[in-house]
Amino acid sequence: MMKYTLPAVIFAAAIAAEPALAQEAAAVAETEAVSGGTVYIFNTLLFLMGGFLVMWMAAGFAMLEAGLVRSKNVSMQCLKNIGLYSIAGIMFWVLGYNIAYGVAEGGWLSGTWAPYAMQAVGEADTGTGYSVASDWFFQMVFCATTASIVSGTVAERVKIWPFFIFIVVLTGVIYPIVVSWEWGAGALDAMGFSDFAGSTLVHSTGGWAALAGALIIGARLGRYTDGKVNVFPGSNIPLATLGTFILWLGWFGFNGASQLAMGTISDVSDVSKIFVNTNMAAAAGVVVAIIGTQILYKKIDVTMALNGALAGLVSITAEPLTPSVPAALFIGGVGGLIVVLAVPLLDKLKIDDVVGAIPVHLLAGIWGTLIVPLTNTEVPFMAQLTGVAAVGVFAFGASAIVWMALKYTIGVRPDEEHEMGGMDHTEIGVEAYPEFVRA
Amino acid sequence: MMKYTLPAVIFAAAIAAEPALAQEAAAVAETEAVSGGTVYIFNTLLFLMGGFLVMWMAAGFAMLEAGLVRSKNVSMQCLKNIGLYSIAGIMFWVLGYNIAYGVAEGGWLSGTWAPYAMQAVGEADTGTGYSVASDWFFQMVFCATTASIVSGTVAERVKIWPFFIFIVVLTGVIYPIVVSWEWGAGALDAMGFSDFAGSTLVHSTGGWAALAGALIIGARLGRYTDGKVNVFPGSNIPLATLGTFILWLGWFGFNGASQLAMGTISDVSDVSKIFVNTNMAAAAGVVVAIIGTQILYKKIDVTMALNGALAGLVSITAEPLTPSVPAALFIGGVGGLIVVLAVPLLDKLKIDDVVGAIPVHLLAGIWGTLIVPLTNTEVPFMAQLTGVAAVGVFAFGASAIVWMALKYTIGVRPDEEHEMGGMDHTEIGVEAYPEFVRA
Amino acid sequence: MMKYTLPAVIFAAAIAAEPALAQEAAAVAETEAVSGGTVYIFNTLLFLMGGFLVMWMAAGFAMLEAGLVRSKNVSMQCLKNIGLYSIAGIMFWVLGYNIAYGVAEGGWLSGTWAPYAMQAVGEADTGTGYSVASDWFFQMVFCATTASIVSGTVAERVKIWPFFIFIVVLTGVIYPIVVSWEWGAGALDAMGFSDFAGSTLVHSTGGWAALAGALIIGARLGRYTDGKVNVFPGSNIPLATLGTFILWLGWFGFNGASQLAMGTISDVSDVSKIFVNTNMAAAAGVVVAIIGTQILYKKIDVTMALNGALAGLVSITAEPLTPSVPAALFIGGVGGLIVVLAVPLLDKLKIDDVVGAIPVHLLAGIWGTLIVPLTNTEVPFMAQLTGVAAVGVFAFGASAIVWMALKYTIGVRPDEEHEMGGMDHTEIGVEAYPEFVRA
Repeated sequence: MMKYTLPAVIFAAAIAAEPALAQEAAAVAETEAVSGGTVYIFNTLLFLMGGFLVMWMAAGFAMLEAGLVRSKNVSMQCLKNIGLYSIAGIMFWVLGYNIAYGVAEGGWLSGTWAPYAMQAVGEADTGTGYSVASDWFFQMVFCATTASIVSGTVAERVKIWPFFIFIVVLTGVIYPIVVSWEWGAGALDAMGFSDFAGSTLVHSTGGWAALAGALIIGARLGRYTDGKVNVFPGSNIPLATLGTFILWLGWFGFNGASQLAMGTISDVSDVSKIFVNTNMAAAAGVVVAIIGTQILYKKIDVTMALNGALAGLVSITAEPLTPSVPAALFIGGVGGLIVVLAVPLLDKLKIDDVVGAIPVHLLAGIWGTLIVPLTNTEVPFMAQLTGVAAVGVFAFGASAIVWMALKYTIGVRPDEEHEMGGMDHTEIGVEAYPEFVRA
Repeated sequence: MMKYTLPAVIFAAAIAAEPALAQEAAAVAETEAVSGGTVYIFNTLLFLMGGFLVMWMAAGFAMLEAGLVRSKNVSMQCLKNIGLYSIAGIMFWVLGYNIAYGVAEGGWLSGTWAPYAMQAVGEADTGTGYSVASDWFFQMVFCATTASIVSGTVAERVKIWPFFIFIVVLTGVIYPIVVSWEWGAGALDAMGFSDFAGSTLVHSTGGWAALAGALIIGARLGRYTDGKVNVFPGSNIPLATLGTFILWLGWFGFNGASQLAMGTISDVSDVSKIFVNTNMAAAAGVVVAIIGTQILYKKIDVTMALNGALAGLVSITAEPLTPSVPAALFIGGVGGLIVVLAVPLLDKLKIDDVVGAIPVHLLAGIWGTLIVPLTNTEVPFMAQLTGVAAVGVFAFGASAIVWMALKYTIGVRPDEEHEMGGMDHTEIGVEAYPEFVRA
Repeated sequence: MMKYTLPAVIFAAAIAAEPALAQEAAAVAETEAVSGGTVYIFNTLLFLMGGFLVMWMAAGFAMLEAGLVRSKNVSMQCLKNIGLYSIAGIMFWVLGYNIAYGVAEGGWLSGTWAPYAMQAVGEADTGTGYSVASDWFFQMVFCATTASIVSGTVAERVKIWPFFIFIVVLTGVIYPIVVSWEWGAGALDAMGFSDFAGSTLVHSTGGWAALAGALIIGARLGRYTDGKVNVFPGSNIPLATLGTFILWLGWFGFNGASQLAMGTISDVSDVSKIFVNTNMAAAAGVVVAIIGTQILYKKIDVTMALNGALAGLVSITAEPLTPSVPAALFIGGVGGLIVVLAVPLLDKLKIDDVVGAIPVHLLAGIWGTLIVPLTNTEVPFMAQLTGVAAVGVFAFGASAIVWMALKYTIGVRPDEEHEMGGMDHTEIGVEAYPEFVRA
């Protein structure tokens, strides 16, 4: 969510079918500016549209994860996802928003922690250029996205209540502090760090929290035995595919509305650029993952293709505006390559990441952040490196502390029998597919 | 769909990154109004966006119901949902729209019943402030929502043709008459009744029609035997989860576009408030259902969490604008509680509601309507009570007459053998999951 | 994507609750035009919204096809769909866009073939009335839709790499050439041919490519044996239903945004008309398919109802603006009838169309194109016939050449054993539902 600059000049253009007519009409219309009231409405509308598209990503994560876990843990994964989205909304209201945006310029920690209060009915926010409630809504769904990322990695072996407690802390405190450093105009922003829509702030933060969880909770029973990696195939590939398409769709809101304004022809043209680049990066991620798995494994792996799309999307998120189309293809394509290479690497390190969220969100998030200076030359590479490192140390460290505290108090894992039997049976009591016989 | 008041004053604000600049820019821009043509476009766009989001709710109901019935009735449920959405569109055009909006001020029944005719190509509607076709589209999808509600409750034991005939009457006559009383400026509106987006007009009307159906059609075979309640688990929990997320997304259109205008900064700010409150009520419904089922049953029930979200959404629908965030959380949270308590209660009364639509849409709809005066003090509680009662008597009574007429003419239930074998086999001929072996 | 006419007069209207007030307010406001800058933003926003809705149709095709193939080929179908969407985006950038829009007025083939270059950051396109990047995005997703159509027909017996190579040619060359003739202001446009949103250009082109594939690749093993038609039921009806609802939703963007402008009250009112007609045609398609299959087969076929919706949508796509509601119902209803009659007919001809894409996209596309003069009297029937024929000859011929070339070089079909075992096993290595026992 790069801060926008004041629109230099407002070009106005009239619609016209014929080139000749267009020139003429444009000449007449170019002096016609957009009124201040209209700008306010367009900006607010951008937040609302972006907001509902990103909200929809919660469904995307739910379907992706429900498709990639084994059928005995599918209800659990559904519950976790609708629960975490709800908790994120409440916590971002209670604490998060003010932590994120109450920080002093250049600072590290906000002094004001209080629930957000909306404007009165019929009242507009003046001096902001948009409805603050619409911005709050848009910010909130970003917070929920961060939580969704964790859910997939630690699936199939974490109990429901410790998971929800972790989400309370992540969405109420950890994520908002990270956001305050950059979008809250805190310390990283002062250093020149740039993260347009959150490759680092959202995706890497979620990825670090997931990595800490995977390490502290440990791998699923039977995953790594006798020096062998046992593959536990996902139970429902079309659901995972649906989830990926939902996320891809939602990302137009995620990146597009992070322009934060569309009330000038310059801003709305930039939003259009962002749509194109976002789509191209994802497409390149898919194509690279398809070719990569064909070469490496002699067969195309559909789950790699899906994760390739997501890695492409995460990669372009730190800077979806300045790249040309070929640059967007390059950035997203490398994201796809990261997935193909990192998924087996994690297995070698015995880090059990059920859905591949660590390669997709953490590694591609780092890649996307570090490559920003390639296309946006105003951004210093050292600031990007500092931002990645600072967020890594804090998000991983804070998450590890919370996971450890949970582990040594209420415990994070079910006992072995319950884990083997599936958590839908022991923790939820509702099986996902009660009528279908399992092999 | 509360009638909007004329915007008191149009505040205009310019976009600006720095507070200092913002103040200055706002001071300059506050006098800049939105032109009449622009207002018309924004209002129309709100109806179109709200319309496609609510249309999408038809898919949400389809998935929710397909997930919560047994696999032998899933194709039937898919057919019912795409069929009812189609019928609703046609009937609301043939009869419904003019019944709903042709009523005399303060009246009970419209005199004009005729199909809606659209404006000519290239012609705008003058004197309305928006395209009437966009409004018609938005109204139509509300009508379809009412029909969707019925489908879930009476699932698994009603034949397809009597069901479709009921939908013809519900969407062509019963629902439009109810709407005419309030949004058509009829009798309830004259009493001061208020129902912003339809907790009573849409959700309770659907709920009453469902209740009448459940009572007259009776419970599924084997559901209540020997004084015992036999649980028939849903066949596909991720589909039900997907359906809930779809409905949640669609609800931003349902409540947000019921502001009916976004062509002023005051209106668009109100739409933003509505987005926030709608989301918070649903979140609270989920959290209360999670905590409630944990306490009552020692396990979280994922289907209760899903219905908790929906009950929260229905609860806030009567007044999503005036509540503060804590009030929205309270209103939605009570909705979640209603689900947790009422689902087992219905089973005690041997009312077989397959998906829980009666607690979600009827009971939470009543709750949401009666609590309006808490946050909107201009609304008299007695008017709310009168509205709830009047709609209840009429919607339940009229629905019961139609169901009875169907029962004693063409019959509503398949014979026992067919019901036990599943309606996909006998009525549709296409099984939902032909390759998966059933337990 | 009919070219818009310059808005004759800009009527402006103020919002008002009371008719009396409305008249007065409208009288005051009608002179208030929309500024040139605001028009640009609205037009661009229409492309962006239409674009993301049509992008979402890629998910719809994926779900429809995943639901209608047998479970042993579901992962393959998921991979094909995410792959083809990605390839389409890249190819339409590398070649397609310039082929489509670089043609000389009235010409048959573009001289300029080069990748599309976007405007610089912060820069708007002047003289066009919208951001060209937003238009590019909207055009690109149409190209992807064409590719999606092919995927369903040739499912379950084409290898992955020949399929992808075909898609490269279709989206990079064949489809763009067809588009250049009409939307690129080429030869068909000069003849007076009219195809508002692509019944012929998109849907029939995809349908012809699919037909060529079905003929050259041949039917699935065991489909037509001993003079008998063996039905291979789809594996997951709710997924197919979901896919249909997704497509229906996306079609509001497909047809609505093909108005190409919403920056005047006249344009936005036309978009509203298009929404209504699009919905009504689909609804009629469903109702006709329901009644038709009940009469012909004594049971309603849910897959026919779904295809009825899609055929209704394709039928209205050539002209969604000029029809009145009854005309839209008629046009869409005939589309539904075409499905009911043509699906068995194709089986008689031993043309194996797995999902019914040929009746839906090719035949209903032809129907929709030929019926345009009924409601749009400026369009000559002979031009429509010429357009249908020209596109048919070229799209079928070019596709056949590519399929033949693939067949006699790298081969298009897996060997018999692999086809019988399912392509998820042999080509992908990831089964769609590994835990569910198959009957």
